[in-house]
Amino acid sequence: MTQLTTVSSWKSFGGNLSVYDHQSALQGCTMRFGVYTPPQAETGPVPVLWYLSGLTCSWANVMEKSGLQRAAAQHGVMVIAPDTSPRGEGVADDEAYDLGQGAGFYLTATQAPWAAHYKMDQYITEELPALVAKELPKADLGRQGIFGHSMGGHGAITLHLKNPDTYKTCSAFSPITSPARVPWGQKAFEAYLGPVSVAWEQYDSTELVKERQSRATILVDTGTADTFLERELKPEIFTRACETHGQRLDYRMREGYGHDYYFIATFMDDHIAHHALGLMD
Amino acid sequence: MTQLTTVSSWKSFGGNLSVYDHQSALQGCTMRFGVYTPPQAETGPVPVLWYLSGLTCSWANVMEKSGLQRAAAQHGVMVIAPDTSPRGEGVADDEAYDLGQGAGFYLTATQAPWAAHYKMDQYITEELPALVAKELPKADLGRQGIFGHSMGGHGAITLHLKNPDTYKTCSAFSPITSPARVPWGQKAFEAYLGPVSVAWEQYDSTELVKERQSRATILVDTGTADTFLERELKPEIFTRACETHGQRLDYRMREGYGHDYYFIATFMDDHIAHHALGLMD
Repeated sequence: MTQLTTVSSWKSFGGNLSVYDHQSALQGCTMRFGVYTPPQAETGPVPVLWYLSGLTCSWANVMEKSGLQRAAAQHGVMVIAPDTSPRGEGVADDEAYDLGQGAGFYLTATQAPWAAHYKMDQYITEELPALVAKELPKADLGRQGIFGHSMGGHGAITLHLKNPDTYKTCSAFSPITSPARVPWGQKAFEAYLGPVSVAWEQYDSTELVKERQSRATILVDTGTADTFLERELKPEIFTRACETHGQRLDYRMREGYGHDYYFIATFMDDHIAHHALGLMD
Repeated sequence: MTQLTTVSSWKSFGGNLSVYDHQSALQGCTMRFGVYTPPQAETGPVPVLWYLSGLTCSWANVMEKSGLQRAAAQHGVMVIAPDTSPRGEGVADDEAYDLGQGAGFYLTATQAPWAAHYKMDQYITEELPALVAKELPKADLGRQGIFGHSMGGHGAITLHLKNPDTYKTCSAFSPITSPARVPWGQKAFEAYLGPVSVAWEQYDSTELVKERQSRATILVDTGTADTFLERELKPEIFTRACETHGQRLDYRMREGYGHDYYFIATFMDDHIAHHALGLMD
């Protein structure tokens, strides 16, 4: 019997966008995610791209606003967009937009009250792929890439660096690449992980890349008019670490663009193409 | 001094999406609209496409969800998305989604309490273009097309048929082409125009096309899985009238698609290309 409840389903660019609910035993709540399946899946399994969203987002933002379906249908890749945290009445939350529900930061919380539910990294890398393997036979989990935006860019790069054989390709829009050094990350890490410690380093792309580099070239686009650029994104810290430690990185600053989905839509084709090329048979 | 207040502005596909407020003397309220200006406007005026949205929508739906910026930037056309009704505290409204604010039906109301503010056809064809001519010098109003979705498809086709020299090209997604014969239209017309009369005919594409045909080919896409197809859209009535009275029409039924923006996004490129071709110098 299927473990997925179909919430919505639409035809899109010859393929299908479906939204599913399932019970997450790991996080102890109902989780929702969106899956775009390209028309090529009719004839066989297709590569899978995981898209991790930013603060306040759900599966919907990227599926509604990025136009990714067009490029995904062109290149024949599936895109899965998970939620950004556990959710529900029994799940700890905070009034601020940058902590609690909608702000899971793709880590396993160790501090109360968060530790009971917040395990988004394990959810993305273990529980959800296992479900996909069982329920979505057109997903070729031998060919996976990962990308994301802002907090989700942080998630994508950290999970890629820790699991380079799983996620063979990686890209990000406006990623938080050094959360341990910026206000968003410091606030979240303090709450979820406790006072600054070595535990923070395993969730910080800049620290991770000093210890391990992937064989892939990480593609990043960030706008020069991004209002979070100086305070939260600080590209120079990560680019310097990649250069010093030999991680291949194509970090492109885009003149005049912001932190929004109009920016993401503009460069979505490039990102899908980057992954499709890297995941070719 | 400018009559426009800039609400938001984003860079998108090398061009710019701006949202403006202005005081509408005609409708007696503040009106908001969105304008996508393609990069080609840097070197001179560009054709203008008016996109009229459906029930409950504002400028935002098509700008956020249709991906039109990509094709507009490719073809070098400006797209202007007005609101779907007058709005504000002093403006008559109804609790239903299909009457009052968000449901202006692109007509001039003659009945109380609507007649005081609801003049969306005049707003679209007179007041807003006059403002655009004054404030947006990159808009080439000698080359205009019009399109829309659902209620906005009704608006686009009726305004095109009445003003074929102004709107030289026309297309629609899932249009209401015979509002006088379907529940949405009958409810709105009864409220705004009073009991059925000849006044209804001037806002009904099927009736209009019996009296006047344009030289353009009207392009229409509608999904076969559109849940409003049988009850509200009834394509066969309009297609038969066009055939009988010599209006060129390319009405395409799209297998499996719905009434949503995933459907619109899928065929947006075709529509922008249709207008761009028709408005070439």
